[in-house]
Amino acid sequence: MSESKPLEVKADGSFKRQINRFTTPFGNRPDHLPIESGRYRLIWCAACPWAHRSVIVRKILGLEETISLGTVSPMRPQIGHVDWEFSLDEDNVDPVLKIQYLSDIYKKTDPNYEGRPTVPVMIDLKKKEAVNNDYFKLTNYFETVWSPFHEENAPNLYPEELREEIDAMNEVIFHEVNNGVYKCGFARSQEAYEVAYDTLFERLDKLEKHLATRRFLMGSFITDADVRLYTTLVRFDAAYYTSFNTNRTLIREFSNLWGYVRDLYQTPGFGDTTDFDAIKRHYHLSITIDPNKEEVKILPKGPDLTGWDSEHGRESLSKQEDKFLRIGSLKNENT
Amino acid sequence: MSESKPLEVKADGSFKRQINRFTTPFGNRPDHLPIESGRYRLIWCAACPWAHRSVIVRKILGLEETISLGTVSPMRPQIGHVDWEFSLDEDNVDPVLKIQYLSDIYKKTDPNYEGRPTVPVMIDLKKKEAVNNDYFKLTNYFETVWSPFHEENAPNLYPEELREEIDAMNEVIFHEVNNGVYKCGFARSQEAYEVAYDTLFERLDKLEKHLATRRFLMGSFITDADVRLYTTLVRFDAAYYTSFNTNRTLIREFSNLWGYVRDLYQTPGFGDTTDFDAIKRHYHLSITIDPNKEEVKILPKGPDLTGWDSEHGRESLSKQEDKFLRIGSLKNENT
Repeated sequence: MSESKPLEVKADGSFKRQINRFTTPFGNRPDHLPIESGRYRLIWCAACPWAHRSVIVRKILGLEETISLGTVSPMRPQIGHVDWEFSLDEDNVDPVLKIQYLSDIYKKTDPNYEGRPTVPVMIDLKKKEAVNNDYFKLTNYFETVWSPFHEENAPNLYPEELREEIDAMNEVIFHEVNNGVYKCGFARSQEAYEVAYDTLFERLDKLEKHLATRRFLMGSFITDADVRLYTTLVRFDAAYYTSFNTNRTLIREFSNLWGYVRDLYQTPGFGDTTDFDAIKRHYHLSITIDPNKEEVKILPKGPDLTGWDSEHGRESLSKQEDKFLRIGSLKNENT
Repeated sequence: MSESKPLEVKADGSFKRQINRFTTPFGNRPDHLPIESGRYRLIWCAACPWAHRSVIVRKILGLEETISLGTVSPMRPQIGHVDWEFSLDEDNVDPVLKIQYLSDIYKKTDPNYEGRPTVPVMIDLKKKEAVNNDYFKLTNYFETVWSPFHEENAPNLYPEELREEIDAMNEVIFHEVNNGVYKCGFARSQEAYEVAYDTLFERLDKLEKHLATRRFLMGSFITDADVRLYTTLVRFDAAYYTSFNTNRTLIREFSNLWGYVRDLYQTPGFGDTTDFDAIKRHYHLSITIDPNKEEVKILPKGPDLTGWDSEHGRESLSKQEDKFLRIGSLKNENT
């Protein structure tokens, strides 16, 4: 069985996400990727939380004219390897890049590339090559070195005085929430799944408390950290709860997290870039890291069953005249 | 594809449950099954709602000494056909019947039997044959013709003056709820699934209203109808919501249904015969009607997304001094 394990599953059955292939930073140094309007095309999938974060930030900062956008389908092609396809476009081809599969440009850039081609990825239209798929840092590049192209009065999603705090929060959110749900969903052992599940819900419980007195993660205003948390929370009830076995509690059952995620959803840049249909189709019909679809069944740890013994308060609905040889009313008499 | 469809799936992809094979009634007429203490063994699986109802009624009425109980594992054996196994017993054999698989006694009784062997089934220990697997009527036999063996002060679960009403309620609950969840989970077309989903939740919404002013379905006391509704509701959040795609609303999100099902759970006969571990293991790891496991992917219709635009009330958590170049506080100003 271990022979057929997907590349991104370790011997103990835990999911270990592949590292990003193209990580040259954007910036103004000679060895950096130059900041130029019209030079890059961002490829995303509406289902993918890693890509969604970059599309939210691009929209909030008004970078839509500066960086063009290509969209792959949430449904993976059935071609024997894991890929993304431009099947939403005419003739199944991106109108700018003229390719059908995302792997086409990955392979053109690096013929030895063996991993999954991933979104988001920034394509250099001059070189016709993939130059950055570093989803962890991409929004920070948009927020900092791309500032000459921000629209007037664009908000500051990454204020200098808060960067250390935001980075620390992002690190935790990445490991325990953003990637945490994938560690649940892609685990190939019961033990690895349960560790990920416990870590995820401990963190969500802490965030629920954190957000009781703060409107957003850093306080009164939205930052890069909120974008990252949003993209997982907005997918949670529609996808992860069922298809990744993260079934202790729905986000809509948390008081503060549910208010928080709707607050963001109703803010321009968030809800208007959220495509529930794409999210549902991808996670329920087309999710995989494994072209051979090895299936190991995992027993969901949830739901929390502690509520079953809680007070229900329904005794008063029983009428007293019915108390002979009836259950319910008999019980009522005893309580 | 249609060639490999399971027997219980119609051409339109909808699930049509097989009919019961052994339906001779219990009673005092010559052509009926005689009522005798110690003569029959009831076989159940703790995961199965159809079997669970008969075990609840057996316990409530005090028939435990009169009718013995055998238990098959919630995990189906992997033997090329759909079966139940006595793998919880020593040597994987029922200590009374001395068989390993439930199909052994079905085949012994009827060598031409082609369907799934099902629980509940009453085995006549004298003839060593399956004599009744009529889950729809079994509890009613226990409640009526088996009354000479009821314990003293056993409640009346099927009062004569209410039988017509209970039967009508049972009929609706059967088609739309008990079997309704299976119609969702075993549908092999998106259309058939969505019809079953809509029917199920329309009925649950009606039951939610019905139970707003009535403690139980018939009013102040528990009847046979409550037993039948309970066995589906108690499995809903732990199993059906995720594995049968019945993911509009959890039972614990309904106010009255959640109070109602906990009220029953906390009543002797209900919670003490409910085995969440067996339920979870069966529905998540071992559910099938199809030995060839033909997989047709169904897109879950839920969750209900209408709440995303509802008021979140979090604006007041933003402080006013932070309103420049920040989102959140900016938005706050506009509202």
